Amino acid sequence: MKIGVIGTGSVGRTMAARLAELGHSVTVGTRDPAATTARTEPDGMGNPPFATWHAEHPDVTLATFEQAARHGEIVLNATGGSGSLPALTAAGADNLRGKVLIDISNPLDFSQGFPPSLWVKDTDSLGEQIQRALPEVRVVKSLNTMAATLMADPKQLAGGDHSVFVSGNDADAKATVTTLLESLGHTDVIDLGDITTARGSEMLLPIWVRLMSALGTPIFQFKIVR
Amino acid sequence: MKIGVIGTGSVGRTMAARLAELGHSVTVGTRDPAATTARTEPDGMGNPPFATWHAEHPDVTLATFEQAARHGEIVLNATGGSGSLPALTAAGADNLRGKVLIDISNPLDFSQGFPPSLWVKDTDSLGEQIQRALPEVRVVKSLNTMAATLMADPKQLAGGDHSVFVSGNDADAKATVTTLLESLGHTDVIDLGDITTARGSEMLLPIWVRLMSALGTPIFQFKIVR
Repeated sequence: MKIGVIGTGSVGRTMAARLAELGHSVTVGTRDPAATTARTEPDGMGNPPFATWHAEHPDVTLATFEQAARHGEIVLNATGGSGSLPALTAAGADNLRGKVLIDISNPLDFSQGFPPSLWVKDTDSLGEQIQRALPEVRVVKSLNTMAATLMADPKQLAGGDHSVFVSGNDADAKATVTTLLESLGHTDVIDLGDITTARGSEMLLPIWVRLMSALGTPIFQFKIVR
Repeated sequence: MKIGVIGTGSVGRTMAARLAELGHSVTVGTRDPAATTARTEPDGMGNPPFATWHAEHPDVTLATFEQAARHGEIVLNATGGSGSLPALTAAGADNLRGKVLIDISNPLDFSQGFPPSLWVKDTDSLGEQIQRALPEVRVVKSLNTMAATLMADPKQLAGGDHSVFVSGNDADAKATVTTLLESLGHTDVIDLGDITTARGSEMLLPIWVRLMSALGTPIFQFKIVR
């Protein structure tokens, strides 16, 4: 399947590599591919320069936001939350129309340091903001409640015995995403309901960041035991 | 041990019954015991009248908020979130001074219907409000992330293989609460940190209420897989 990934940070890279490994045709989008390629310093999160990563993943194509959106039958929003609406606007509503957009972002505000707060919550969510900005895109909020490495390869922790959520207004889109998630190794995909239920999964982040501190690792997951 | 329970709703009753069953001396506090006893209609949540429940649990004493607080070596705040600060104020700072207060409440606002939103969140929490209002009480936020029946008897679901959180400023108080939780059957007690981490556990409620809808039952639990 052709997949577009919006964003070249750790989530975008980890998902792109895994999807390419599974045989998908993956194009990663960035604002300015030449500038992204030219960088020689680690990014703000300590990830190596994109070019270093790309040399190890030549099967992934680097392109503009627009080109990545146009390429994808499914598109992943793997930008940091504050960059999501600008990046998706740059990707273009025409290039995304009718497509499934898996929104992995979280509205984390680090302006006051760690732990971050959420700049939208409870009575709205970033998933809903994206759906409102792009009404003809079929937004499915998912994967935003775990570390990137577990999004892409959940079986590395407890054999995959933990949960992932989907929220969205389009049942077919959620079914498509569920199939993709299962192909990655997710075994318990829980449909929370329409896109307003993204408020629930985004509001998991405040305990997620505190659990990361308490446990000393980001490699943990929520399992809904029932 | 002598335990005071503030609140006669389903959380208060379920915890009181279980703690009495385990051999503790339990006094449940209400604003007006005579009025609570006189009620013959189910409460707003559909629970049977208190007198009906009390007839089946004669080992639990009904008293005022003040008397229950005075009785307890450990005190549980089992009131609904909006009633917590008034009830604890009525219980009296003098009666609670130096004691461990297990705060089970959540700041749920049902004024706009279901699902509720939170009336305090993210940059503050109800647990912190209670700690600020009662600075000489050792507040430990816990048990607020699950159905009452699972708080009291966690082993009824998956043999107890799921998680409960504690947040508080006093390490000894958290150790006391952890021992009590383990006596109830909780097997995975996670110390999130100081009382500000109650923001994390309280902000689990938005996904909890949506999971209850999606799963069709309140009998589920969060397990932190790691």
